[in-house]
Amino acid sequence: MAQKAGNSEVDFRPHFKTHQSRFIGEWFRKDGVSSITVSSLSMAEYFASVGWKDITVAFPVNLREINLINKLASDIRLGLVVEDPEVVMELESSLRHEVQTWIKIDTGAGRTGLTIEEMPVIRQIIRLINHADKLRFAGLLTHAGHTYKAADKTGILKIAQNSVNYMNQVRAEIMDLADGFAVSVGDTPSCSLMDTFTGVDEIRPGNFVFYDLMQAAKGVCRSDQIAAVVACPVVAIHEKRNQAVLYGGAVHFSKDFVMISGRPVYGQLVEMDDSGWYEPVKEAYMVSLSQEHGILEAPSGIIEKLKSGQLLGIIPVHACLTANLMRGYRLISGEEVDHF
Amino acid sequence: MAQKAGNSEVDFRPHFKTHQSRFIGEWFRKDGVSSITVSSLSMAEYFASVGWKDITVAFPVNLREINLINKLASDIRLGLVVEDPEVVMELESSLRHEVQTWIKIDTGAGRTGLTIEEMPVIRQIIRLINHADKLRFAGLLTHAGHTYKAADKTGILKIAQNSVNYMNQVRAEIMDLADGFAVSVGDTPSCSLMDTFTGVDEIRPGNFVFYDLMQAAKGVCRSDQIAAVVACPVVAIHEKRNQAVLYGGAVHFSKDFVMISGRPVYGQLVEMDDSGWYEPVKEAYMVSLSQEHGILEAPSGIIEKLKSGQLLGIIPVHACLTANLMRGYRLISGEEVDHF
Repeated sequence: MAQKAGNSEVDFRPHFKTHQSRFIGEWFRKDGVSSITVSSLSMAEYFASVGWKDITVAFPVNLREINLINKLASDIRLGLVVEDPEVVMELESSLRHEVQTWIKIDTGAGRTGLTIEEMPVIRQIIRLINHADKLRFAGLLTHAGHTYKAADKTGILKIAQNSVNYMNQVRAEIMDLADGFAVSVGDTPSCSLMDTFTGVDEIRPGNFVFYDLMQAAKGVCRSDQIAAVVACPVVAIHEKRNQAVLYGGAVHFSKDFVMISGRPVYGQLVEMDDSGWYEPVKEAYMVSLSQEHGILEAPSGIIEKLKSGQLLGIIPVHACLTANLMRGYRLISGEEVDHF
Repeated sequence: MAQKAGNSEVDFRPHFKTHQSRFIGEWFRKDGVSSITVSSLSMAEYFASVGWKDITVAFPVNLREINLINKLASDIRLGLVVEDPEVVMELESSLRHEVQTWIKIDTGAGRTGLTIEEMPVIRQIIRLINHADKLRFAGLLTHAGHTYKAADKTGILKIAQNSVNYMNQVRAEIMDLADGFAVSVGDTPSCSLMDTFTGVDEIRPGNFVFYDLMQAAKGVCRSDQIAAVVACPVVAIHEKRNQAVLYGGAVHFSKDFVMISGRPVYGQLVEMDDSGWYEPVKEAYMVSLSQEHGILEAPSGIIEKLKSGQLLGIIPVHACLTANLMRGYRLISGEEVDHF
């Protein structure tokens, strides 16, 4: 991803909310990464504490955290995201240090951000920033999260292109108010499937560090690109119904699911031994999760070979939420790696 | 619940997996509770460390945790749940201290446990326990988790009664092998709706300590019995679509949902001020969650009054998973309470 960003001469500001690990962060640093994205101020504080000096918090400013904002802004180049003129005014009156200020644009995801129909608000915010002492206009930022609702690669690429076009329409409309600002985009599906990045200045994908079953199901990655599985002990075997109960439930995986063959799936079995894991096992899915239990359903040939206490590898549906719950990693080498 | 159990002369062994808090545990102690249920050995270790001496881990034994089992069994009256003769034999060869051994019975939930059709396995396990030095047969244990799939109170009560009948059929079939053993049941829907407990010796409900939107939607509790909400800051307001974005996402609530009016709902707004919270607000639901964001959709009269930074109270769909993610509580008095 770093290479692809370099080839297109766009800034690469990977989202660290997926791995949330200072150790894994160092792998990025070795690839020349010096600016990052996170999803909370506390995560920014964690990464700032291990030397990251340029961090965008890609989440609308929560005014209740002004003290932490000031603390961080005194130490690092802090990027914040705004979409409400009142918040901008509150910030200006409470900030003690300069912050990079991004305006969140909604290019169709329908979650946060301003649309092109709200151009008067966008322009009002830029004017407020221009007159502010502690705010510097960094640019326009979007997350085309609706790529996750696309059915396939073609759908994702179409949404990604529309999103970039939309950002450039907004950019054109504010050129009289500002210059030297950037356009930042970056969901993992778009960034994984696009070969080059044109019309943007910065990309912020995150999930690609591990990928997961959701991304594979949408054709965003190959299954051999998935870089994290959960090792789950077998605790009960029910051969008659081709099921085993694993110690791996909602407190480990969260409860995101992906529809496969018309039913919700919460994870997929992979072949695994002491040296790592290999191919996903066909038709071997986690079909139900409760607080600590997960039910694996698989062809009878798989289930009848299981032993209580055996460790199985399960690809999570949503790596970000699973990593957030597991709070740590073990590398294939055996090394333990911590998580925020 | 303690009183109801007392009136029926059954043991009350509340499940602490919902609150996972030593502080909240003390409230139970004041009501005369001395035996508890947890869902993991590490949770048992946490409660043992604050003086609980009689703990059942209501999860099939994970043989990989034998060291922790031995450590706990040396200190407290530890209850374990088994359903596999091989696990029983492994336990007997690895245990250094006596454990109370429950056989898990599946009365229809279809998750873990043995059915009455597997009576030869049940009897084999009892014989193994009878001949074992470190295993004591405690009884038959079930979790009628299928009550959560019932549509309403009548459905729940019917499943609960069938489950108790089923347990007594199993009990009758093993009387020649054992005596002085107990029958333990206890999901929150059944225990909340039943007035008396007959045909069982012990109940183990847990979620009732807080209840949640799922329980209220099924008629298990009244909304004014719900004892935990998540305080979420408003971070963006979108009046045109009657929505606000809250700082409250999948990393706070998990992703369980309940279907209301044909759509998935992830939480409900309650009226809240500094002295507490009151009634749920009609038609004001969390309709979508991503990692950190939650989207509240509510009547326009509600949305237009919101301010960025304001705290809103949201009833979680599944209190157990939400408490597990939030990892702490603030009481109405302002006191902070920790979580395992």
